[in-house]
Amino acid sequence: MDVIVDLCVVPIGAGVSVSSHIAACQRVIGDSGLSHQMHAYGTNIEGPWDEVMAVVKRCHEVVHEMGAPRITTTLKMGTRTDREQRMQDKVDSVDALLGDD
Amino acid sequence: MDVIVDLCVVPIGAGVSVSSHIAACQRVIGDSGLSHQMHAYGTNIEGPWDEVMAVVKRCHEVVHEMGAPRITTTLKMGTRTDREQRMQDKVDSVDALLGDD
Amino acid sequence: MDVIVDLCVVPIGAGVSVSSHIAACQRVIGDSGLSHQMHAYGTNIEGPWDEVMAVVKRCHEVVHEMGAPRITTTLKMGTRTDREQRMQDKVDSVDALLGDD
Amino acid sequence: MDVIVDLCVVPIGAGVSVSSHIAACQRVIGDSGLSHQMHAYGTNIEGPWDEVMAVVKRCHEVVHEMGAPRITTTLKMGTRTDREQRMQDKVDSVDALLGDD
Repeated sequence: MDVIVDLCVVPIGAGVSVSSHIAACQRVIGDSGLSHQMHAYGTNIEGPWDEVMAVVKRCHEVVHEMGAPRITTTLKMGTRTDREQRMQDKVDSVDALLGDD
Repeated sequence: MDVIVDLCVVPIGAGVSVSSHIAACQRVIGDSGLSHQMHAYGTNIEGPWDEVMAVVKRCHEVVHEMGAPRITTTLKMGTRTDREQRMQDKVDSVDALLGDD
Repeated sequence: MDVIVDLCVVPIGAGVSVSSHIAACQRVIGDSGLSHQMHAYGTNIEGPWDEVMAVVKRCHEVVHEMGAPRITTTLKMGTRTDREQRMQDKVDSVDALLGDD
Repeated sequence: MDVIVDLCVVPIGAGVSVSSHIAACQRVIGDSGLSHQMHAYGTNIEGPWDEVMAVVKRCHEVVHEMGAPRITTTLKMGTRTDREQRMQDKVDSVDALLGDD
């Protein structure tokens, strides 16, 4: 079962700037070899369920190891069985409709 | 690493009523033996990371098996390393402050 | 248009304990007179869209006034036009199915 | 008070393909004149709180008008009082750290 997720990891009790923690998560995601795309409020990742979820867990571990005592993450997770769909397909199908305007 | 999550599974393309799918998820959660509490917009679950995430995966599998071609889930996930905290502790600490009013 | 939301306000850069900020939000919600129910990872609120969203905004204002320099909120929002539904109805319809087991 | 949001609107009971509804939301967002960026699991929007929230409400109205009887939305909302920050700043600050690798 493949999954497309939107991952947003928020360290709590680690100060107001969280960019170093997010950068550490980006390295974890990049090292996984999974397809991913960062945006201003999270990172989309796609791949086999267990591989993607291992990345999410590793992000929590790494951010704690950096000293954050507490983390709250918001994760959107999409699966489908009717057909394969990749991240870019989702954007393309909306863009195609908008292009008809 | 323990985690407290708030799980909200939404079947897409399975009609307007989703209560049967949610009930199936509740059975998966209940069968896991993990502490949990349903509310009007999701279910809180707490326990070891891998056990909780196995339940989330099983919910997706079961809802697909029931015929939903597509699922979108919103999952909040909280971990902390400074101390142990259970779901009830979080509610109690806020209630204690409100009780001081 | 009525809405049922699940509101989770997270102060960033305000230390590891956030219960005082959450309690302040609970006071805002309680003062609104809207139906609400706190759980371990947020608070469900129901009512007319504009009234509920005014409460969400007021929560951000109050938490900033308490000194939190940054806030990230996760808000689930449900609307429906096919029939009226209240928070308790959602829980009841799932419980009824589980009761058939 | 400015806000950066990540908006993900999900029609329920409107079939398995939701791209036409998402495209309609993109038109609402585009017509608002607010800065925005679509990704594979939502759209980031930034601007004054009331303007952004009016767009979110209008998205719900439009998707219902298209025939969706039920909608569930997941909205992440970020505000800060310590300094101004735009969507691109968030991405740039993480990219700068990654570039140091």
